[in-house]
Amino acid sequence: MIKRKVYLEDIPLDEAWRRFIAAMKSAGMWEPFRGEDVPLDAALGRVTARPVWAALSSPGYHASAMDGYAVRSADTLGATETAPVRLKLGPDGQAQYVDTGDPLPSWADAVIMIEQAQPIGDEVNGGGVIEIQASVAPWTSVRPMGEDMVATELVLPANHVLTPVDLGAIAGCGYAMVNVRRKPRVAIIPTGTELVTVEQVNRNGLKRGDIIEYNSLVLAAEVRGWGGEPDRFPIVSDDYERIKATVREAAATHDLVLINAGSSAGSEDFTARVVEELGKLLVHGVAVRPGHPVILGVVERGVESVERDDAIPVIGVPGYPVSCALTGEIFVEPILSHWLGLPSREKTKVEATITRKLLSPMGEDEWVRVTVGRVGERIVAAPLSRGAGVITSLVRADGIVRIPRFSEGVDAGQSVTVELYRDPSEIERTIVHIGSHDLCLDLLAQSLADSGRRLTSANAGSLGGLVALRRGEAHLAGSHLLDPQTGEYNVSYVKQYLPGVPVALVTFVHREQGLIIAPGNPKGIKGLADLARPDVRYVNRQRGAGTRILLDYRLGQLGIEPAQVCGYAREEYTHLAVAVAVQSGVADCGLGIAAAARALKLDFIPLEQERYDLVIPRTHYESDLLRPLLDLIRGPEFRRAVAELPGYDATHMGEAMDL
Amino acid sequence: MIKRKVYLEDIPLDEAWRRFIAAMKSAGMWEPFRGEDVPLDAALGRVTARPVWAALSSPGYHASAMDGYAVRSADTLGATETAPVRLKLGPDGQAQYVDTGDPLPSWADAVIMIEQAQPIGDEVNGGGVIEIQASVAPWTSVRPMGEDMVATELVLPANHVLTPVDLGAIAGCGYAMVNVRRKPRVAIIPTGTELVTVEQVNRNGLKRGDIIEYNSLVLAAEVRGWGGEPDRFPIVSDDYERIKATVREAAATHDLVLINAGSSAGSEDFTARVVEELGKLLVHGVAVRPGHPVILGVVERGVESVERDDAIPVIGVPGYPVSCALTGEIFVEPILSHWLGLPSREKTKVEATITRKLLSPMGEDEWVRVTVGRVGERIVAAPLSRGAGVITSLVRADGIVRIPRFSEGVDAGQSVTVELYRDPSEIERTIVHIGSHDLCLDLLAQSLADSGRRLTSANAGSLGGLVALRRGEAHLAGSHLLDPQTGEYNVSYVKQYLPGVPVALVTFVHREQGLIIAPGNPKGIKGLADLARPDVRYVNRQRGAGTRILLDYRLGQLGIEPAQVCGYAREEYTHLAVAVAVQSGVADCGLGIAAAARALKLDFIPLEQERYDLVIPRTHYESDLLRPLLDLIRGPEFRRAVAELPGYDATHMGEAMDL
Repeated sequence: MIKRKVYLEDIPLDEAWRRFIAAMKSAGMWEPFRGEDVPLDAALGRVTARPVWAALSSPGYHASAMDGYAVRSADTLGATETAPVRLKLGPDGQAQYVDTGDPLPSWADAVIMIEQAQPIGDEVNGGGVIEIQASVAPWTSVRPMGEDMVATELVLPANHVLTPVDLGAIAGCGYAMVNVRRKPRVAIIPTGTELVTVEQVNRNGLKRGDIIEYNSLVLAAEVRGWGGEPDRFPIVSDDYERIKATVREAAATHDLVLINAGSSAGSEDFTARVVEELGKLLVHGVAVRPGHPVILGVVERGVESVERDDAIPVIGVPGYPVSCALTGEIFVEPILSHWLGLPSREKTKVEATITRKLLSPMGEDEWVRVTVGRVGERIVAAPLSRGAGVITSLVRADGIVRIPRFSEGVDAGQSVTVELYRDPSEIERTIVHIGSHDLCLDLLAQSLADSGRRLTSANAGSLGGLVALRRGEAHLAGSHLLDPQTGEYNVSYVKQYLPGVPVALVTFVHREQGLIIAPGNPKGIKGLADLARPDVRYVNRQRGAGTRILLDYRLGQLGIEPAQVCGYAREEYTHLAVAVAVQSGVADCGLGIAAAARALKLDFIPLEQERYDLVIPRTHYESDLLRPLLDLIRGPEFRRAVAELPGYDATHMGEAMDL
Repeated sequence: MIKRKVYLEDIPLDEAWRRFIAAMKSAGMWEPFRGEDVPLDAALGRVTARPVWAALSSPGYHASAMDGYAVRSADTLGATETAPVRLKLGPDGQAQYVDTGDPLPSWADAVIMIEQAQPIGDEVNGGGVIEIQASVAPWTSVRPMGEDMVATELVLPANHVLTPVDLGAIAGCGYAMVNVRRKPRVAIIPTGTELVTVEQVNRNGLKRGDIIEYNSLVLAAEVRGWGGEPDRFPIVSDDYERIKATVREAAATHDLVLINAGSSAGSEDFTARVVEELGKLLVHGVAVRPGHPVILGVVERGVESVERDDAIPVIGVPGYPVSCALTGEIFVEPILSHWLGLPSREKTKVEATITRKLLSPMGEDEWVRVTVGRVGERIVAAPLSRGAGVITSLVRADGIVRIPRFSEGVDAGQSVTVELYRDPSEIERTIVHIGSHDLCLDLLAQSLADSGRRLTSANAGSLGGLVALRRGEAHLAGSHLLDPQTGEYNVSYVKQYLPGVPVALVTFVHREQGLIIAPGNPKGIKGLADLARPDVRYVNRQRGAGTRILLDYRLGQLGIEPAQVCGYAREEYTHLAVAVAVQSGVADCGLGIAAAARALKLDFIPLEQERYDLVIPRTHYESDLLRPLLDLIRGPEFRRAVAELPGYDATHMGEAMDL
């Protein structure tokens, strides 16, 4: 097969938008959509296409504001406790009973509360009499006609997102329907021969080389959340003519077509050619990261349409899931908002301190996903994986930091602006963990959710966690650092790394460390001494990890040099990643915890039991924020759940030591 | 008819909640709901009932991260520009073409980007050769198996609101369905013989005494927005047995019943008795304002239910629309959130300066609706109508200020906490007008919406507007203050009220002032001299209003004392309110603008043309915030729209004078 050598352009974001908007304008597709009438009970969250001017006044008459008696204020003049006034009841009398909301009789100009009138005689209404002990001013306890809305008055402007009370006001001023902007119809076309639906995978299993198609699900949910009507097409294989036919079909009945993916420059990337042939290719490659291989264009609508011109916008959305979701935010959201007559959605912004240095390529706008938490007085933002294929980096992201073009990045400790995905109140109830990785932290995060706390966890190794505490970037750090001198865990390291900081050292778990090996132990590994064998490929943990320090200590005892260990330089950041390396055959063994081996059905050679502590500065230890976490690890339920995991001992969980 | 004398209790909010939760607990109705499996494309915004642990790793194999050639890194060692290395292509060779996402061949451990490999020979794949000029390290451009998610790993906790990317992650780790909390089913029963639907009003017109029922619409939309499933019942007339039967029916198939209203102590308030008979009345009257006559109770479910015990909560919701909507926020939202496993929704809070003194009754928590805007460095909150019947006070509210029990209120200029209904970014693009009322301000607000600005307008009269500018509480003030000495409008007042403040005086409109009178002029009114007639009832504007100042000036010229004018003391705050007073027969005439008379189809005796200016301090005049407003009034479209209104002249609109 002949490869097409297509080199992507690097068009700056603002220039890409300029071209795109100009093309939409000349196609008549850059105007807010016209309205459609919908019943009020279907209008929540829709956007008014026209202003609402009151058709009726509300109240439509002078109405009683209380349960009580309608009177002429003049008749009550002079009434006091010592000289009460009696008023005759009845429709032709001086007082008439009214419920709240009842129209005032035409002769009345005030209402006396029921509690302030004493009925005289048997029956309250119908020939009876009431006695009052105070006069009332004119218009007391009366809601004048039009108090709420006067006919012809502006009730709501156009381009307004309808709330529950808005719907009430529209009904109250006389309308059963409201004119709202039509929902933009967005076609989402997943392309790729390697794609399978998750339903197919559930039926037939996942074959090697298959990729589960979920970008269309993400795009559809984004479109729905932004007020559009998504339409997911079935997966189209990498067949130029089929893709072209599908795009042409979609363009006939939608307002916007998203083609995912085929927007890159690979052997089966047909999107650009299809757009070129069906309309006009405006941009192929935007200087943003992730999301670079995006395509912007317009395609002929192909059918007559009353409302629209003959071309609609089309976006070739990159295939990597993070690029795909962010392309939605960067390109799809502003178009939908504009069509709905709304300004682009702005996320709430906070200033935060970034915890790590970020290098960023000059010439590209970069969107960095971060977790965000308040540690003491500061809000800290910790960068997540920058891989465009790591959807969980968006799942876990609390916000986005934009590193603009012409910047080389940011330094650790620098202040950055975070655009939040979450409500700021969620940030305030976030517990930030940085440190060693342990599977029980997942369980802890899950259990904490019940008490309204979020636990975010960054795997930086035991030493990395202590450094983060020193810098004020985390509330707590998981740590399992063996001091070979004392045989004690963590104490000497905490003293060295956090001098003068009062710290509570809280035992979390005792757990088994050992060698994770392939099922059946094909290489016949017996212990760490085998790491010196040239045929044994090891997978290591990163520098600063407690497990790495343990390895180095034990290798030293065995007299094995790191250079003798094949694979010593291959670093992973979690126990599970080590287990995956073994599972996939990349390595024959790695040092890690029993639970990781068990999770992936691998074999395990236990070597020793170690203590894994939570290191918590006392200011945080005593805070309201952390209380639910401490209550949890000291309660019976969580302890029981941990004890059930293979290789874990929860006997001492929650015991604290002051340092 | 015998009246029941029921006095409402005044139970503090926290005590009311304590009783309500205790009763729900003993009925087994204070637990998060169990989950139901839903397909992912229907799960946006739903709440996970269980954690999601990955079923599959993603990627499920080592995958190419680029379009390029899979190689053994060892084969590339030593490649440089001067000593390139050639690799044989093909499945059994040294290099194999891979698209992004393709599985790495088992013999390969790195990928070379397509741009960095030069094909030698005709065909790229199948016997050909590539040449490379640099070596690659192991695992370059490879996404290792499990890079995103490792099977068994926690992907999402329980009690998590699903976002678009979450749905992608769930599919990516192998699930087509997700277990989410069942939506709480909420029955909403409107009761009241006086109630009609807006659809009935559209067919038959509004009869005197009819009230349009829209509380059920508001409650239903609130419930939907909070994740519940509302069920609006038809209107039930004030018939004890019918209400009881309807509540019993609703309780059998719902999780929560809202009865609106009949919760007060009037002659037809049956709700408390119904709750008492069908279950247990816990609270009748809570010390909150608005919303006092609320009823809390539980009613027997009446049918067997697998999941639930035999009683469900019921709330008697007050009938005033503001009380009703706030009762939803105060009582319904926390229950629904709890059932969904979520913490109660917290609104974003901002500190603001309150513009007016607010007296509040001791012993009640009061919720005050406010508009909010940023004026210079300060955020200011202006109280709206406190009437429980004024739904537009909630429509216009940007937020709520809570005045707690045991407080007597707040002073003007005091700092208060506002819980925002809107995004803070909306507050930043809000233009705050305080001053005289003119109908063209509605038109301006409506037109501004197109340019992403909001205009909030408080009617404080011309002088009130100047005072607000002096206090830094508004961006601009509409003013039409005639200086009798000079015959000039506004200039001398601005100099007096805003000494030393550079101000732009921008002409808005010239408009006709005159007497608004009943159609046909039944009292034969000819001019202001007739106000001295004892049979002519006048309706006045409030102190500080330009129209009032004009009246006083002209009365003085005519030698008429205010005491001679019948109705001089009755004050309204807008031209339309004056017109309504005339329309409803409360007054025979009032001074106001022609447009207000025309809007309500009243007659009008023109007296003079006046200039209505916008007074804008130069700091705001030159700000980005106000630019769209100034552009608008200087453009042809808005001027044309104003000129079409009766009694308006827009010839000089936009002309500015420096003061």
